[in-house]
Amino acid sequence: EVMLTRERYRVPRLPFSHLSDSDVAFFERIIPGRVITDPEELKPFNVDWLKSVQGCSKLMLKPQTTAEVSQLLRYCYERNLAVNPQGGNTGLVGGSVPVFDEIILSTFLMNQIISFDKVSGILVCQAGCILEKLNDYLEEQGFIMPLDLGAKGSCHIGGNVATNAGGLRLLRYGSLRGTVLGLEVVLADGSVLDCLTSLRKDNTGYDLKQLFIGSEGTLGVITAVSILCPQKPKAVNLAFLGCQNFNKVLETFTTCRAMLGEILSAYEFMDEKCMELVQSHLKLSNPVTGSPFYVLIETSGSNSAHDEEKLNNFLEQVMTSGLVTDGTVATDDKKIKTLWSLRERITEALTHDGYVYKYDVSLPVGKLYDLVTDMRAHLGQRAKNVVGYGHLGDGNLHLNITTESYSHSLLDAIEPFVYEWTARYKGSISAEHGLGFKKKQFIQYSKPTEAVFLMQCFKAMLDPKGILNPYKVLPSCS
Amino acid sequence: EVMLTRERYRVPRLPFSHLSDSDVAFFERIIPGRVITDPEELKPFNVDWLKSVQGCSKLMLKPQTTAEVSQLLRYCYERNLAVNPQGGNTGLVGGSVPVFDEIILSTFLMNQIISFDKVSGILVCQAGCILEKLNDYLEEQGFIMPLDLGAKGSCHIGGNVATNAGGLRLLRYGSLRGTVLGLEVVLADGSVLDCLTSLRKDNTGYDLKQLFIGSEGTLGVITAVSILCPQKPKAVNLAFLGCQNFNKVLETFTTCRAMLGEILSAYEFMDEKCMELVQSHLKLSNPVTGSPFYVLIETSGSNSAHDEEKLNNFLEQVMTSGLVTDGTVATDDKKIKTLWSLRERITEALTHDGYVYKYDVSLPVGKLYDLVTDMRAHLGQRAKNVVGYGHLGDGNLHLNITTESYSHSLLDAIEPFVYEWTARYKGSISAEHGLGFKKKQFIQYSKPTEAVFLMQCFKAMLDPKGILNPYKVLPSCS
Repeated sequence: EVMLTRERYRVPRLPFSHLSDSDVAFFERIIPGRVITDPEELKPFNVDWLKSVQGCSKLMLKPQTTAEVSQLLRYCYERNLAVNPQGGNTGLVGGSVPVFDEIILSTFLMNQIISFDKVSGILVCQAGCILEKLNDYLEEQGFIMPLDLGAKGSCHIGGNVATNAGGLRLLRYGSLRGTVLGLEVVLADGSVLDCLTSLRKDNTGYDLKQLFIGSEGTLGVITAVSILCPQKPKAVNLAFLGCQNFNKVLETFTTCRAMLGEILSAYEFMDEKCMELVQSHLKLSNPVTGSPFYVLIETSGSNSAHDEEKLNNFLEQVMTSGLVTDGTVATDDKKIKTLWSLRERITEALTHDGYVYKYDVSLPVGKLYDLVTDMRAHLGQRAKNVVGYGHLGDGNLHLNITTESYSHSLLDAIEPFVYEWTARYKGSISAEHGLGFKKKQFIQYSKPTEAVFLMQCFKAMLDPKGILNPYKVLPSCS
Repeated sequence: EVMLTRERYRVPRLPFSHLSDSDVAFFERIIPGRVITDPEELKPFNVDWLKSVQGCSKLMLKPQTTAEVSQLLRYCYERNLAVNPQGGNTGLVGGSVPVFDEIILSTFLMNQIISFDKVSGILVCQAGCILEKLNDYLEEQGFIMPLDLGAKGSCHIGGNVATNAGGLRLLRYGSLRGTVLGLEVVLADGSVLDCLTSLRKDNTGYDLKQLFIGSEGTLGVITAVSILCPQKPKAVNLAFLGCQNFNKVLETFTTCRAMLGEILSAYEFMDEKCMELVQSHLKLSNPVTGSPFYVLIETSGSNSAHDEEKLNNFLEQVMTSGLVTDGTVATDDKKIKTLWSLRERITEALTHDGYVYKYDVSLPVGKLYDLVTDMRAHLGQRAKNVVGYGHLGDGNLHLNITTESYSHSLLDAIEPFVYEWTARYKGSISAEHGLGFKKKQFIQYSKPTEAVFLMQCFKAMLDPKGILNPYKVLPSCS
């Protein structure tokens, strides 16, 4: 059962043109055999991964080259046809599917690696390359992608950049705003903007590519990416630890940052409810039981003896001081993967628990878990489960609430409560998921009116007809 | 003797209003006692540090608060008075001084630290804080600034952000595009844009602050900065090494990246000419003589025993393999400072050598020194010295040419040769210095026409009258 969030927000269809037979015929001439009109085939691309929003697009286009994207967009722009750029369709805020009948422009076939330079670590590739495949390719050459996330098996790098994806390695390698060196973008009118440089430093004029990073397909279609990739660490260690309360989770973080320093590559936390769901729905086993909180600490370094010594010193410190009560350590690939999956598969476990209300907020790290506690108290028996986990090292909490089935009144109890709470502590109501369709009306909780106005000016300048991913990111002008 | 580059480019004064007595009276009412009109007092602020460009401003304003900046700009905008935002005036491309009679808006008195959070390492401060003072403040609390550069004793953090300064720590801590978390900016019309968040992650709408980073004061005046600061490393080591040719400099880099990994924090190189100038003009002594190339390698880490072991393993490897012929190592603060000054004071030494033609390019790292060799051959006896040094780890070369005195014909021999050479290898004609006044006409060597057009659109949108730092960054529309 798909929840049509559109109904809730009562968004009217904007006056774009309707698709005609001659439009389809034109597209067939440009990209023969790569124009999808079969309703059955279109179904999975009209609905998001969470099955929370659904559009009714009658057409999907699968270009292979930037020149094709340019031709297609130029035509759509002239004809005033709305377009929904789509990568791996793994987004969590309804940004990657049509709201009405927008044409789906898929990067699925734009999956070529253009170049990789082993001296600099700079990878240039098309937007439709799948994150995990890029990482596999790089690992063979002694490098890794600077980002990693649960959806890596299907998400596209273009979509990652368009949504400024965060994920599991941000703590160590920083955000895409630093690692993405260049972009090629096709603008709404079909013109190609070539900012695909492969230089670490370039201060010639304004950094235009930044505007497209995180714009969720509303300002242009990213067709190629140049990205700086770190060397593959020679040694990786994982520690999975149990803490008796959230303050100890925080103190363990401070201790580990001081003692592990430059080799710390992830600090993730999850509450015991998360672990229960992963165990009950996915049959994964928890090696460390009986703790209200769990943390996953990863180190990545160039010398395994040094790294293990640092990690052991740290573990001794947190065990003897009572910050951590129990734990397990992994140095071999297989056990590392098993432990990581406890954290990475929480999202999946939640979908088996019923309907999921998902929130992804940034907060001052000391306040991070208070939101979960307050929400649990606020909802009481109305929720099935209220769980918290996330990238503690980045101040990023994933708050998830499950119920047997979707309920309007429960949503009313959660929102705007969650946004007001977050705004009170100057947090972000979307740390990494973006705004998409489902959160765009709440932007004002994190951005002042002047900023939203300026964003609308940029949108109007770059896409005057508003054909690119309409109904997304920015609140409807009323 | 100041070279009026303006003459060379024959830029006409744009039709801004001329300053009147009633303007000065108005400013005196807003910021009493902080309105400078004395020509002698204004002199050093009308000319750049290199003494290569000079304006004739009759007025400098020294606001203390964002509200004052807003009031001043609103007035200037209404009156159509041009404004030159100025920080420490340490820029190298004539971006920080007036070209004609623009009003100088100095951040000199905006030097307050607003907050520092020891858990997250996030510093919030006014734009006029001096980089070195911020670093000193942070060091007392166990942190450092994520950037460092030769001009640290006088440059302002607002200017650093406005020019997207790179510097000596970029290799380790990344660019300001990743570390700057928030900005407060006053727009041309005086309106205040508050994007001063202190969160590591925030995906609510377009990242507006990025447009102001590196815009060199042409899109808005940065009044406050929120920046993520790394922990102060517990151990710092320096190695100053001699290499017999540039290929060995490159191989030493590859080796050191593999063996030092996560503790590598700087890899700088300089040719023997640089060392000669530092020795002859500044009387510094070179501890490693007789090499055509020198490299400075810095490690920063959390465990001195581990770091020293890594460094020693690396040094043994490069000495026995013949990549490095001689060298010295420093672990104590004093010797570290002394060795760093050999690299940091090259700019200063060059100014004692005569008139300096400065270039700052990014290139694929293997091509980096070919430009110096080619330029030397190209200029022959016409140049006094042609030297190359820079941030090799970032692919960033500083090419400097000196002569007894400025000569138009020599400039014609250098430009556009240097830009054409750089463009041939898809390099950037300004890696970190920006375009300012002196390089704006050459943007097309690194950016396509469509990109420059889009930049002009952004400028027109944010500053329709063009009062902010006119004649800078973007080429004159003709």
